[in-house]
Amino acid sequence: MTGVRIGLDVGGSKTDAVAVAAGGSILARRRSATERGDVGVVDSIVAAVEAVSTRAGSLSITSIGIGIPGQTDGRTVRHAVNLDVRELRLADAVEARCGVPVAVENDVKAAALGAHALAPVAGPLALLNLGTGIAAGVVVDGRLWRGAGGAAGEIGHVPIDPAGPVCACGQTGCIEALAGGRALAARWARPGAFPVRDLLDAADEGHPLALRLRADFVRGAAAAIRLLALAVDPRRIVLAGGLAALGDRVADIVSEELRRSSAASGFLRSLHLGERIEVLPAGSPAAALGASLIDAPVPV
Amino acid sequence: MTGVRIGLDVGGSKTDAVAVAAGGSILARRRSATERGDVGVVDSIVAAVEAVSTRAGSLSITSIGIGIPGQTDGRTVRHAVNLDVRELRLADAVEARCGVPVAVENDVKAAALGAHALAPVAGPLALLNLGTGIAAGVVVDGRLWRGAGGAAGEIGHVPIDPAGPVCACGQTGCIEALAGGRALAARWARPGAFPVRDLLDAADEGHPLALRLRADFVRGAAAAIRLLALAVDPRRIVLAGGLAALGDRVADIVSEELRRSSAASGFLRSLHLGERIEVLPAGSPAAALGASLIDAPVPV
Repeated sequence: MTGVRIGLDVGGSKTDAVAVAAGGSILARRRSATERGDVGVVDSIVAAVEAVSTRAGSLSITSIGIGIPGQTDGRTVRHAVNLDVRELRLADAVEARCGVPVAVENDVKAAALGAHALAPVAGPLALLNLGTGIAAGVVVDGRLWRGAGGAAGEIGHVPIDPAGPVCACGQTGCIEALAGGRALAARWARPGAFPVRDLLDAADEGHPLALRLRADFVRGAAAAIRLLALAVDPRRIVLAGGLAALGDRVADIVSEELRRSSAASGFLRSLHLGERIEVLPAGSPAAALGASLIDAPVPV
Repeated sequence: MTGVRIGLDVGGSKTDAVAVAAGGSILARRRSATERGDVGVVDSIVAAVEAVSTRAGSLSITSIGIGIPGQTDGRTVRHAVNLDVRELRLADAVEARCGVPVAVENDVKAAALGAHALAPVAGPLALLNLGTGIAAGVVVDGRLWRGAGGAAGEIGHVPIDPAGPVCACGQTGCIEALAGGRALAARWARPGAFPVRDLLDAADEGHPLALRLRADFVRGAAAAIRLLALAVDPRRIVLAGGLAALGDRVADIVSEELRRSSAASGFLRSLHLGERIEVLPAGSPAAALGASLIDAPVPV
Protein backbone atom coordinates (compact mmCIF):
# COMPACT_ATOMS: atom_id res chain seq x y z
CA MET A 1 0.00 0.00 0.00
CA THR A 2 1.46 3.35 -1.00
CA GLY A 3 -1.04 5.68 0.67
CA VAL A 4 -1.02 7.13 4.14
CA ARG A 5 -3.14 6.43 7.18
CA ILE A 6 -4.41 9.34 9.22
CA GLY A 7 -4.64 9.05 13.00
CA LEU A 8 -6.37 11.54 15.28
CA ASP A 9 -6.48 11.99 19.03
CA VAL A 10 -9.55 14.07 19.78
CA GLY A 11 -9.13 15.62 23.21
CA GLY A 12 -11.33 17.98 25.21
CA SER A 13 -9.29 20.99 24.15
CA LYS A 14 -7.00 19.89 21.28
CA THR A 15 -7.08 17.49 18.34
CA ASP A 16 -3.75 15.92 17.45
CA ALA A 17 -3.50 14.54 13.89
CA VAL A 18 -0.72 12.54 12.24
CA ALA A 19 -0.20 11.17 8.73
CA VAL A 20 1.53 7.81 8.88
CA ALA A 21 3.39 6.01 6.08
CA ALA A 22 2.78 2.33 5.38
CA GLY A 23 6.03 1.54 7.22
CA GLY A 24 4.81 3.31 10.35
CA SER A 25 6.80 6.56 10.20
CA ILE A 26 5.04 9.85 10.94
CA LEU A 27 5.09 12.02 7.79
CA ALA A 28 3.26 15.02 9.20
CA ARG A 29 1.59 16.20 12.38
CA ARG A 30 -0.86 18.96 13.21
CA ARG A 31 -2.46 20.07 16.45
CA SER A 32 -5.52 22.30 16.51
CA ALA A 33 -8.36 23.31 18.81
CA THR A 34 -11.30 20.91 19.21
CA GLU A 35 -14.78 22.37 18.82
CA ARG A 36 -17.43 20.74 20.99
CA GLY A 37 -20.76 19.11 20.29
CA ASP A 38 -21.58 16.65 17.51
CA VAL A 39 -21.08 19.14 14.66
CA GLY A 40 -18.03 20.74 16.26
CA VAL A 41 -16.26 17.39 16.76
CA VAL A 42 -16.88 16.24 13.17
CA ASP A 43 -15.83 19.64 11.74
CA SER A 44 -12.66 19.61 13.87
CA ILE A 45 -11.76 16.13 12.65
CA VAL A 46 -12.37 16.91 8.97
CA ALA A 47 -10.33 20.13 9.21
CA ALA A 48 -7.48 18.27 10.93
CA VAL A 49 -7.53 15.49 8.30
CA GLU A 50 -7.36 18.04 5.49
CA ALA A 51 -4.56 20.00 7.12
CA VAL A 52 -2.36 17.04 7.95
CA SER A 53 -2.88 15.31 4.60
CA THR A 54 -1.93 18.54 2.80
CA ARG A 55 1.29 18.56 4.82
CA ALA A 56 1.89 14.90 3.98
CA GLY A 57 1.99 15.77 0.26
CA SER A 58 0.30 14.11 -2.66
CA LEU A 59 -0.05 10.58 -1.24
CA SER A 60 -3.60 9.31 -1.08
CA ILE A 61 -5.30 8.59 2.24
CA THR A 62 -6.23 4.94 2.76
CA SER A 63 -7.88 5.13 6.19
CA ILE A 64 -8.67 7.36 9.14
CA GLY A 65 -8.48 6.20 12.76
CA ILE A 66 -9.99 8.30 15.52
CA GLY A 67 -9.14 8.03 19.22
CA ILE A 68 -11.76 9.77 21.32
CA PRO A 69 -12.84 9.76 24.99
CA GLY A 70 -15.96 7.77 25.82
CA GLN A 71 -17.35 4.39 24.92
CA THR A 72 -16.80 3.24 21.36
CA ASP A 73 -17.79 0.23 19.31
CA GLY A 74 -15.56 0.84 16.29
CA ARG A 75 -17.96 3.29 14.65
CA THR A 76 -19.97 5.14 17.29
CA VAL A 77 -18.91 7.15 20.36
CA ARG A 78 -21.04 7.51 23.49
CA HIS A 79 -20.72 9.54 26.70
CA ALA A 80 -17.79 11.72 25.59
CA VAL A 81 -18.64 14.11 28.39
CA ASN A 82 -15.73 16.54 27.85
CA LEU A 83 -16.76 16.96 24.20
CA ASP A 84 -20.48 17.49 24.88
CA VAL A 85 -21.24 14.35 22.90
CA ARG A 86 -23.88 11.90 24.13
CA GLU A 87 -24.03 9.58 21.15
CA LEU A 88 -22.53 10.21 17.72
CA ARG A 89 -22.21 7.94 14.70
CA LEU A 90 -18.76 9.33 14.15
CA ALA A 91 -17.42 6.87 11.56
CA ASP A 92 -20.49 7.39 9.34
CA ALA A 93 -20.20 11.17 9.61
CA VAL A 94 -16.47 11.31 8.80
CA GLU A 95 -16.68 8.69 6.03
CA ALA A 96 -19.42 10.77 4.37
CA ARG A 97 -17.15 13.84 4.40
CA CYS A 98 -13.75 12.23 3.67
CA GLY A 99 -14.63 9.21 1.52
CA VAL A 100 -12.28 6.69 3.15
CA PRO A 101 -12.85 3.96 5.78
CA VAL A 102 -12.95 5.31 9.34
CA ALA A 103 -12.42 3.42 12.61
CA VAL A 104 -13.24 4.83 16.04
CA GLU A 105 -11.55 3.71 19.26
CA ASN A 106 -11.40 4.85 22.86
CA ASP A 107 -8.52 7.33 23.21
CA VAL A 108 -6.74 5.48 26.03
CA LYS A 109 -6.78 2.21 24.10
CA ALA A 110 -5.46 4.02 21.00
CA ALA A 111 -2.69 5.61 23.08
CA ALA A 112 -1.65 2.19 24.39
CA LEU A 113 -1.32 0.93 20.83
CA GLY A 114 0.71 4.01 19.91
CA ALA A 115 3.01 3.72 22.93
CA HIS A 116 3.73 0.14 21.89
CA ALA A 117 4.40 1.20 18.28
CA LEU A 118 6.82 3.93 19.43
CA ALA A 119 8.77 1.55 21.69
CA PRO A 120 7.80 -2.08 21.08
CA VAL A 121 8.24 -4.39 24.05
CA ALA A 122 8.20 -8.17 24.20
CA GLY A 123 5.26 -9.19 26.36
CA PRO A 124 2.22 -7.17 27.36
CA LEU A 125 2.31 -3.38 27.67
CA ALA A 126 -0.21 -1.28 29.61
CA LEU A 127 -0.76 2.44 29.28
CA LEU A 128 -2.30 3.90 32.44
CA ASN A 129 -4.12 7.15 31.81
CA LEU A 130 -4.06 9.44 34.82
CA GLY A 131 -6.31 12.19 33.51
CA THR A 132 -9.78 13.53 34.26
CA GLY A 133 -10.62 9.83 34.47
CA ILE A 134 -8.50 6.75 35.17
CA ALA A 135 -8.31 3.88 32.70
CA ALA A 136 -5.74 1.63 31.07
CA GLY A 137 -5.15 0.24 27.62
CA VAL A 138 -3.45 -3.12 27.24
CA VAL A 139 -1.49 -4.31 24.20
CA VAL A 140 -0.56 -7.98 23.80
CA ASP A 141 1.52 -9.29 20.93
CA GLY A 142 1.13 -5.87 19.32
CA ARG A 143 -2.66 -6.06 19.40
CA LEU A 144 -5.13 -4.15 21.49
CA TRP A 145 -6.90 -6.11 24.24
CA ARG A 146 -10.54 -5.03 24.23
CA GLY A 147 -12.12 -7.87 26.19
CA ALA A 148 -15.54 -9.33 25.59
CA GLY A 149 -17.37 -5.99 25.62
CA GLY A 150 -14.70 -3.30 25.37
CA ALA A 151 -14.45 -2.89 29.17
CA ALA A 152 -10.91 -4.32 29.47
CA GLY A 153 -8.73 -1.76 31.23
CA GLU A 154 -11.57 0.22 32.85
CA ILE A 155 -9.82 -0.20 36.18
CA GLY A 156 -10.73 3.31 37.36
CA HIS A 157 -13.99 1.84 38.58
CA VAL A 158 -12.51 -0.84 40.81
CA PRO A 159 -13.39 0.11 44.42
CA ILE A 160 -10.39 0.01 46.76
CA ASP A 161 -11.72 1.70 49.89
CA PRO A 162 -15.20 1.23 51.36
CA ALA A 163 -14.58 4.44 53.37
CA GLY A 164 -13.55 6.39 50.26
CA PRO A 165 -15.48 9.07 48.36
CA VAL A 166 -18.53 8.25 46.24
CA CYS A 167 -17.62 7.91 42.55
CA ALA A 168 -19.47 9.48 39.63
CA CYS A 169 -20.26 5.90 38.56
CA GLY A 170 -22.33 5.36 41.71
CA GLN A 171 -19.94 3.05 43.53
CA THR A 172 -17.91 4.04 46.59
CA GLY A 173 -14.14 4.33 46.84
CA CYS A 174 -13.30 3.67 43.17
CA ILE A 175 -9.72 4.34 42.07
CA GLU A 176 -11.07 7.16 39.89
CA ALA A 177 -12.92 8.75 42.83
CA LEU A 178 -9.60 8.89 44.68
CA ALA A 179 -7.18 9.70 41.87
CA GLY A 180 -9.08 11.02 38.84
CA GLY A 181 -8.46 14.65 37.90
CA ARG A 182 -12.17 15.50 37.73
CA ALA A 183 -12.85 14.02 41.18
CA LEU A 184 -9.77 15.72 42.69
CA ALA A 185 -10.71 19.09 41.20
CA ALA A 186 -14.26 18.79 42.53
CA ARG A 187 -13.00 17.96 46.04
CA TRP A 188 -10.34 20.69 45.88
CA ALA A 189 -12.93 23.25 44.79
CA ARG A 190 -10.51 26.15 44.42
CA PRO A 191 -11.04 27.95 41.10
CA GLY A 192 -8.26 27.89 38.51
CA ALA A 193 -7.23 26.48 35.18
CA PHE A 194 -4.93 23.79 36.65
CA PRO A 195 -6.62 22.56 39.82
CA VAL A 196 -4.41 19.48 40.29
CA ARG A 197 -1.22 21.52 39.92
CA ASP A 198 -2.65 24.05 42.37
CA LEU A 199 -3.50 21.20 44.73
CA LEU A 200 0.04 19.77 44.55
CA ASP A 201 1.51 23.24 45.17
CA ALA A 202 -0.76 23.68 48.19
CA ALA A 203 0.21 20.23 49.48
CA ASP A 204 3.88 21.22 49.24
CA GLU A 205 2.99 24.21 51.43
CA GLY A 206 1.31 21.94 53.98
CA HIS A 207 -2.35 22.75 53.26
CA PRO A 208 -4.27 20.02 55.18
CA LEU A 209 -6.98 19.30 52.55
CA ALA A 210 -4.39 19.35 49.76
CA LEU A 211 -2.25 16.87 51.70
CA ARG A 212 -5.24 14.54 52.08
CA LEU A 213 -6.16 14.80 48.39
CA ARG A 214 -2.55 14.26 47.31
CA ALA A 215 -2.43 11.17 49.51
CA ASP A 216 -5.63 9.90 47.89
CA PHE A 217 -4.19 10.54 44.44
CA VAL A 218 -0.99 8.60 45.04
CA ARG A 219 -2.91 5.83 46.78
CA GLY A 220 -5.27 5.48 43.80
CA ALA A 221 -2.50 5.66 41.20
CA ALA A 222 -0.40 3.08 43.05
CA ALA A 223 -3.45 0.82 43.39
CA ALA A 224 -4.04 1.04 39.63
CA ILE A 225 -0.44 0.03 38.93
CA ARG A 226 -0.55 -2.83 41.44
CA LEU A 227 -3.87 -4.05 40.08
CA LEU A 228 -2.57 -4.01 36.48
CA ALA A 229 0.50 -5.97 37.57
CA LEU A 230 -1.58 -8.63 39.34
CA ALA A 231 -4.39 -8.95 36.80
CA VAL A 232 -2.58 -8.44 33.49
CA ASP A 233 1.12 -8.52 34.43
CA PRO A 234 2.45 -6.07 31.81
CA ARG A 235 6.19 -5.90 31.21
CA ARG A 236 5.94 -2.12 30.94
CA ILE A 237 3.41 0.33 32.40
CA VAL A 238 3.39 3.70 30.65
CA LEU A 239 1.87 6.57 32.66
CA ALA A 240 0.02 9.07 30.47
CA GLY A 241 -2.70 11.71 30.72
CA GLY A 242 -2.93 15.16 32.23
CA LEU A 243 -1.71 14.18 35.69
CA ALA A 244 1.20 12.16 34.33
CA ALA A 245 2.04 15.24 32.20
CA LEU A 246 2.88 17.01 35.46
CA GLY A 247 6.06 15.01 35.06
CA ASP A 248 8.64 13.83 37.58
CA ARG A 249 6.71 15.42 40.40
CA VAL A 250 3.85 12.94 39.96
CA ALA A 251 6.04 9.98 38.98
CA ASP A 252 8.16 10.51 42.09
CA ILE A 253 5.30 10.54 44.59
CA VAL A 254 3.66 7.52 42.93
CA SER A 255 6.95 5.58 42.96
CA GLU A 256 7.41 6.51 46.62
CA GLU A 257 3.93 5.18 47.42
CA LEU A 258 4.72 1.91 45.59
CA ARG A 259 7.87 1.54 47.69
CA ARG A 260 6.03 2.39 50.90
CA SER A 261 3.17 -0.05 50.23
CA SER A 262 5.61 -2.82 49.26
CA ALA A 263 7.68 -2.46 52.41
CA ALA A 264 5.66 -5.05 54.34
CA SER A 265 5.29 -7.50 51.44
CA GLY A 266 8.09 -9.55 49.93
CA PHE A 267 5.52 -10.82 47.45
CA LEU A 268 4.79 -7.30 46.25
CA ARG A 269 8.47 -6.39 46.10
CA SER A 270 9.06 -9.47 43.93
CA LEU A 271 6.86 -7.84 41.27
CA HIS A 272 9.37 -4.98 40.81
CA LEU A 273 6.57 -2.52 40.06
CA GLY A 274 8.81 0.55 40.17
CA GLU A 275 11.06 -0.81 37.46
CA ARG A 276 8.19 -1.32 35.02
CA ILE A 277 6.91 2.26 35.13
CA GLU A 278 7.76 5.04 32.75
CA VAL A 279 6.09 8.35 31.96
CA LEU A 280 4.97 9.09 28.40
CA PRO A 281 7.03 12.14 27.34
CA ALA A 282 5.08 15.42 27.12
CA GLY A 283 3.98 16.04 23.54
CA SER A 284 4.26 12.37 22.53
CA PRO A 285 2.20 11.56 19.42
CA ALA A 286 1.36 8.12 20.88
CA ALA A 287 -2.41 8.58 20.97
CA ALA A 288 -2.75 9.89 17.38
CA LEU A 289 -0.25 7.35 16.06
CA GLY A 290 -2.12 4.56 17.84
CA ALA A 291 -5.41 5.76 16.35
CA SER A 292 -3.90 5.38 12.87
CA LEU A 293 -3.11 1.75 13.69
CA ILE A 294 -6.50 0.56 14.91
CA ASP A 295 -8.12 -2.14 12.83
CA ALA A 296 -10.43 -0.39 10.42
CA PRO A 297 -13.75 -2.24 10.17
CA VAL A 298 -14.94 -3.20 6.71
CA PRO A 299 -16.30 0.00 5.09
CA VAL A 300 -20.08 0.23 5.03
CA MET B 1 0.19 -37.84 16.57
CA THR B 2 -1.28 -41.15 17.66
CA GLY B 3 -0.17 -41.19 21.30
CA VAL B 4 -1.87 -39.81 24.36
CA ARG B 5 -1.10 -36.85 26.55
CA ILE B 6 -1.33 -37.24 30.32
CA GLY B 7 -2.60 -34.38 32.44
CA LEU B 8 -2.45 -34.22 36.24
CA ASP B 9 -3.97 -31.92 38.79
CA VAL B 10 -1.92 -32.30 41.96
CA GLY B 11 -3.98 -31.08 44.90
CA GLY B 12 -3.26 -30.94 48.60
CA SER B 13 -5.20 -34.15 49.24
CA LYS B 14 -5.85 -35.76 45.82
CA THR B 15 -4.16 -36.12 42.45
CA ASP B 16 -6.48 -36.24 39.46
CA ALA B 17 -5.00 -37.79 36.30
CA VAL B 18 -6.43 -38.02 32.79
CA ALA B 19 -5.21 -39.60 29.56
CA VAL B 20 -6.21 -37.45 26.59
CA ALA B 21 -6.39 -38.46 22.93
CA ALA B 22 -4.91 -36.25 20.21
CA GLY B 23 -8.43 -35.02 19.40
CA GLY B 24 -8.94 -33.85 23.01
CA SER B 25 -11.24 -36.57 24.34
CA ILE B 26 -10.55 -38.07 27.77
CA LEU B 27 -9.72 -41.78 27.37
CA ALA B 28 -9.21 -42.57 31.05
CA ARG B 29 -9.23 -40.88 34.45
CA ARG B 30 -7.89 -41.82 37.86
CA ARG B 31 -7.98 -40.06 41.21
CA SER B 32 -5.68 -41.02 44.05
CA ALA B 33 -4.28 -39.64 47.30
CA THR B 34 -1.36 -37.17 47.08
CA GLU B 35 1.65 -37.84 49.27
CA ARG B 36 3.41 -34.72 50.55
CA GLY B 37 6.99 -33.50 50.36
CA ASP B 38 9.30 -33.57 47.34
CA VAL B 39 9.56 -37.37 47.19
CA GLY B 40 5.89 -37.91 47.97
CA VAL B 41 4.72 -35.56 45.23
CA VAL B 42 6.95 -37.12 42.56
CA ASP B 43 5.98 -40.66 43.64
CA SER B 44 2.29 -39.73 43.57
CA ILE B 45 2.62 -38.30 40.07
CA VAL B 46 4.52 -41.29 38.67
CA ALA B 47 2.00 -43.72 40.20
CA ALA B 48 -0.90 -41.74 38.75
CA VAL B 49 0.73 -41.62 35.30
CA GLU B 50 1.27 -45.39 35.34
CA ALA B 51 -2.26 -46.12 36.50
CA VAL B 52 -4.03 -43.85 34.03
CA SER B 53 -1.89 -44.87 31.07
CA THR B 54 -2.57 -48.54 31.84
CA ARG B 55 -6.29 -47.74 31.73
CA ALA B 56 -5.83 -45.86 28.45
CA GLY B 57 -4.53 -49.08 26.83
CA SER B 58 -1.54 -49.63 24.60
CA LEU B 59 -1.16 -46.12 23.17
CA SER B 60 2.19 -44.49 23.86
CA ILE B 61 2.47 -41.39 26.03
CA THR B 62 3.75 -38.32 24.19
CA SER B 63 3.78 -35.79 27.02
CA ILE B 64 2.87 -35.15 30.65
CA GLY B 65 1.43 -31.87 31.90
CA ILE B 66 1.27 -31.15 35.62
CA GLY B 67 -0.95 -28.55 37.26
CA ILE B 68 0.20 -27.85 40.81
CA PRO B 69 -0.33 -25.09 43.40
CA GLY B 70 2.47 -22.59 43.80
CA GLN B 71 4.71 -20.60 41.51
CA THR B 72 5.89 -22.35 38.37
CA ASP B 73 8.16 -21.52 35.48
CA GLY B 74 7.29 -24.41 33.21
CA ARG B 75 9.66 -26.87 34.93
CA THR B 76 10.05 -25.96 38.60
CA VAL B 77 7.48 -25.42 41.36
CA ARG B 78 8.03 -23.12 44.33
CA HIS B 79 6.06 -22.38 47.52
CA ALA B 80 3.49 -25.18 47.16
CA VAL B 81 2.68 -24.77 50.84
CA ASN B 82 -0.12 -27.35 51.00
CA LEU B 83 2.20 -30.00 49.55
CA ASP B 84 5.14 -29.24 51.86
CA VAL B 85 7.21 -28.30 48.81
CA ARG B 86 9.50 -25.27 48.92
CA GLU B 87 11.28 -25.67 45.62
CA LEU B 88 11.23 -28.76 43.43
CA ARG B 89 12.60 -29.34 39.91
CA LEU B 90 9.48 -31.29 39.13
CA ALA B 91 9.79 -31.60 35.34
CA ASP B 92 13.35 -32.96 35.65
CA ALA B 93 12.28 -35.47 38.31
CA VAL B 94 9.25 -36.77 36.39
CA GLU B 95 11.06 -36.84 33.03
CA ALA B 96 13.80 -38.95 34.63
CA ARG B 97 11.20 -41.47 35.82
CA CYS B 98 8.76 -41.46 32.87
CA GLY B 99 10.99 -40.67 29.88
CA VAL B 100 8.67 -38.20 28.12
CA PRO B 101 8.61 -34.38 28.02
CA VAL B 102 6.99 -32.84 31.10
CA ALA B 103 5.53 -29.34 31.50
CA VAL B 104 4.59 -27.80 34.86
CA GLU B 105 1.98 -25.08 35.29
CA ASN B 106 0.15 -23.41 38.16
CA ASP B 107 -3.01 -25.42 38.88
CA VAL B 108 -5.42 -22.49 38.55
CA LYS B 109 -4.01 -21.52 35.15
CA ALA B 110 -4.25 -25.16 34.03
CA ALA B 111 -7.85 -25.33 35.23
CA ALA B 112 -8.71 -22.23 33.19
CA LEU B 113 -7.32 -23.88 30.07
CA GLY B 114 -9.31 -27.02 30.84
CA ALA B 115 -12.55 -25.11 31.47
CA HIS B 116 -12.13 -23.47 28.08
CA ALA B 117 -11.44 -26.84 26.40
CA LEU B 118 -14.57 -28.37 27.97
CA ALA B 119 -16.81 -25.50 26.86
CA PRO B 120 -15.03 -23.21 24.38
CA VAL B 121 -16.22 -19.63 24.38
CA ALA B 122 -15.58 -16.88 21.85
CA GLY B 123 -13.66 -14.15 23.64
CA PRO B 124 -11.71 -14.32 26.87
CA LEU B 125 -12.59 -16.77 29.65
CA ALA B 126 -11.52 -16.44 33.29
CA LEU B 127 -11.55 -19.16 35.90
CA LEU B 128 -11.72 -17.72 39.42
CA ASN B 129 -10.42 -20.11 42.05
CA LEU B 130 -12.11 -19.63 45.40
CA GLY B 131 -10.06 -22.05 47.44
CA THR B 132 -7.51 -21.87 50.24
CA GLY B 133 -6.17 -18.98 48.15
CA ILE B 134 -7.79 -16.72 45.57
CA ALA B 135 -6.45 -16.45 42.02
CA ALA B 136 -7.68 -16.46 38.45
CA GLY B 137 -6.53 -18.00 35.19
CA VAL B 138 -7.31 -16.22 31.93
CA VAL B 139 -7.60 -17.85 28.51
CA VAL B 140 -7.60 -15.74 25.35
CA ASP B 141 -8.07 -17.19 21.88
CA GLY B 142 -7.68 -20.63 23.47
CA ARG B 143 -4.28 -19.77 24.94
CA LEU B 144 -3.26 -19.19 28.54
CA TRP B 145 -2.46 -15.61 29.50
CA ARG B 146 0.60 -15.72 31.75
CA GLY B 147 1.71 -12.09 31.58
CA ALA B 148 5.29 -10.86 31.61
CA GLY B 149 6.32 -12.85 34.69
CA GLY B 150 3.55 -15.38 35.32
CA ALA B 151 1.70 -13.07 37.75
CA ALA B 152 -1.33 -12.50 35.50
CA GLY B 153 -4.46 -13.47 37.42
CA GLU B 154 -2.94 -13.21 40.92
CA ILE B 155 -5.80 -10.93 41.89
CA GLY B 156 -6.08 -12.41 45.39
CA HIS B 157 -3.40 -9.96 46.43
CA VAL B 158 -5.16 -6.80 45.29
CA PRO B 159 -6.02 -4.81 48.45
CA ILE B 160 -9.64 -3.66 48.53
CA ASP B 161 -10.03 -2.43 52.10
CA PRO B 162 -7.43 -0.47 54.09
CA ALA B 163 -9.36 -1.43 57.24
CA GLY B 164 -9.38 -5.13 56.35
CA PRO B 165 -7.35 -7.97 57.86
CA VAL B 166 -3.60 -8.32 57.28
CA CYS B 167 -2.85 -10.79 54.49
CA ALA B 168 -0.28 -13.60 54.59
CA CYS B 169 1.49 -11.69 51.79
CA GLY B 170 2.16 -8.76 54.14
CA GLN B 171 -0.31 -6.31 52.63
CA THR B 172 -3.55 -5.25 54.30
CA GLY B 173 -7.09 -5.95 53.11
CA CYS B 174 -6.22 -8.19 50.15
CA ILE B 175 -9.09 -10.04 48.49
CA GLU B 176 -7.50 -13.28 49.70
CA ALA B 177 -7.33 -12.03 53.30
CA LEU B 178 -11.09 -11.44 53.15
CA ALA B 179 -12.25 -14.38 51.04
CA GLY B 180 -9.53 -17.06 50.93
CA GLY B 181 -10.35 -20.34 52.63
CA ARG B 182 -7.12 -20.41 54.63
CA ALA B 183 -7.66 -16.87 55.94
CA LEU B 184 -11.33 -17.56 56.76
CA ALA B 185 -10.48 -20.79 58.59
CA ALA B 186 -7.79 -19.01 60.62
CA ARG B 187 -10.20 -16.24 61.61
CA TRP B 188 -13.02 -18.72 62.34
CA ALA B 189 -10.69 -20.80 64.51
CA ARG B 190 -13.23 -23.52 65.30
CA PRO B 191 -11.71 -26.98 64.79
CA GLY B 192 -13.13 -29.23 62.08
CA ALA B 193 -12.45 -30.73 58.69
CA PHE B 194 -14.62 -28.24 56.76
CA PRO B 195 -14.19 -24.88 58.49
CA VAL B 196 -15.81 -22.81 55.74
CA ARG B 197 -18.88 -25.06 55.62
CA ASP B 198 -19.06 -24.87 59.42
CA LEU B 199 -18.74 -21.09 59.20
CA LEU B 200 -21.59 -20.83 56.66
CA ASP B 201 -23.77 -23.08 58.82
CA ALA B 202 -23.04 -20.91 61.85
CA ALA B 203 -23.84 -17.77 59.84
CA ASP B 204 -27.20 -19.29 58.87
CA GLU B 205 -27.83 -19.70 62.60
CA GLY B 206 -26.96 -16.05 63.25
CA HIS B 207 -23.54 -16.47 64.88
CA PRO B 208 -22.11 -12.90 64.91
CA LEU B 209 -18.49 -13.72 63.95
CA ALA B 210 -19.67 -16.14 61.26
CA LEU B 211 -21.94 -13.45 59.82
CA ARG B 212 -19.00 -11.03 59.65
CA LEU B 213 -16.72 -13.60 58.04
CA ARG B 214 -19.41 -14.62 55.54
CA ALA B 215 -19.88 -10.95 54.65
CA ASP B 216 -16.11 -10.62 54.12
CA PHE B 217 -16.10 -13.72 51.92
CA VAL B 218 -18.88 -12.50 49.62
CA ARG B 219 -17.36 -9.02 49.51
CA GLY B 220 -13.99 -10.43 48.48
CA ALA B 221 -15.43 -12.85 45.94
CA ALA B 222 -17.61 -10.14 44.39
CA ALA B 223 -14.62 -7.79 44.26
CA ALA B 224 -12.59 -10.44 42.43
CA ILE B 225 -15.34 -10.85 39.83
CA ARG B 226 -15.76 -7.09 39.39
CA LEU B 227 -12.03 -6.61 39.10
CA LEU B 228 -11.71 -9.35 36.45
CA ALA B 229 -14.56 -7.77 34.48
CA LEU B 230 -12.95 -4.33 34.54
CA ALA B 231 -9.34 -5.36 33.97
CA VAL B 232 -9.69 -8.34 31.61
CA ASP B 233 -13.38 -8.28 30.60
CA PRO B 234 -13.92 -12.05 30.19
CA ARG B 235 -17.05 -13.24 28.43
CA ARG B 236 -17.40 -16.02 30.99
CA ILE B 237 -16.17 -16.26 34.60
CA VAL B 238 -16.04 -19.83 35.90
CA LEU B 239 -16.01 -20.16 39.70
CA ALA B 240 -13.91 -23.09 40.89
CA GLY B 241 -12.05 -24.30 43.97
CA GLY B 242 -13.09 -25.62 47.35
CA LEU B 243 -15.43 -22.76 48.23
CA ALA B 244 -17.12 -22.80 44.83
CA ALA B 245 -17.54 -26.56 45.35
CA LEU B 246 -19.93 -25.71 48.17
CA GLY B 247 -22.25 -25.15 45.24
CA ASP B 248 -25.37 -23.04 44.87
CA ARG B 249 -25.09 -21.86 48.43
CA VAL B 250 -21.91 -19.92 47.63
CA ALA B 251 -22.95 -18.92 44.11
CA ASP B 252 -26.22 -17.50 45.47
CA ILE B 253 -24.67 -15.29 48.13
CA VAL B 254 -21.99 -14.04 45.72
CA SER B 255 -24.61 -13.24 43.05
CA GLU B 256 -26.67 -11.44 45.67
CA GLU B 257 -23.64 -9.34 46.66
CA LEU B 258 -23.01 -8.47 42.98
CA ARG B 259 -26.62 -7.31 42.68
CA ARG B 260 -26.43 -5.34 45.91
CA SER B 261 -23.17 -3.61 45.00
CA SER B 262 -24.47 -2.77 41.51
CA ALA B 263 -27.68 -1.21 42.79
CA ALA B 264 -26.19 2.28 42.96
CA SER B 265 -24.24 2.05 39.70
CA GLY B 266 -25.76 1.94 36.23
CA PHE B 267 -22.23 1.57 34.92
CA LEU B 268 -21.70 -1.60 36.96
CA ARG B 269 -25.12 -2.98 35.99
CA SER B 270 -24.20 -2.45 32.32
CA LEU B 271 -21.44 -5.03 32.79
CA HIS B 272 -24.00 -7.81 33.47
CA LEU B 273 -21.62 -9.54 35.88
CA GLY B 274 -24.23 -12.00 37.16
CA GLU B 275 -24.88 -13.33 33.67
CA ARG B 276 -21.23 -14.14 33.05
CA ILE B 277 -20.77 -16.33 36.10
CA GLU B 278 -21.06 -20.08 36.27
CA VAL B 279 -19.82 -22.64 38.78
CA LEU B 280 -17.52 -25.43 37.65
CA PRO B 281 -19.47 -28.66 38.29
CA ALA B 282 -18.23 -30.75 41.22
CA GLY B 283 -15.89 -33.48 39.97
CA SER B 284 -15.08 -31.67 36.72
CA PRO B 285 -11.82 -32.90 35.16
CA ALA B 286 -11.04 -29.32 33.98
CA ALA B 287 -7.78 -28.93 35.90
CA ALA B 288 -6.26 -32.25 34.83
CA LEU B 289 -7.49 -31.84 31.26
CA GLY B 290 -6.03 -28.32 31.15
CA ALA B 291 -2.71 -29.61 32.46
CA SER B 292 -2.55 -32.04 29.52
CA LEU B 293 -2.93 -29.08 27.16
CA ILE B 294 -0.20 -26.79 28.46
CA ASP B 295 2.60 -26.08 26.03
CA ALA B 296 5.33 -28.56 26.77
CA PRO B 297 8.74 -26.88 26.72
CA VAL B 298 11.41 -28.37 24.49
CA PRO B 299 12.70 -31.52 26.26
CA VAL B 300 16.07 -31.12 27.97
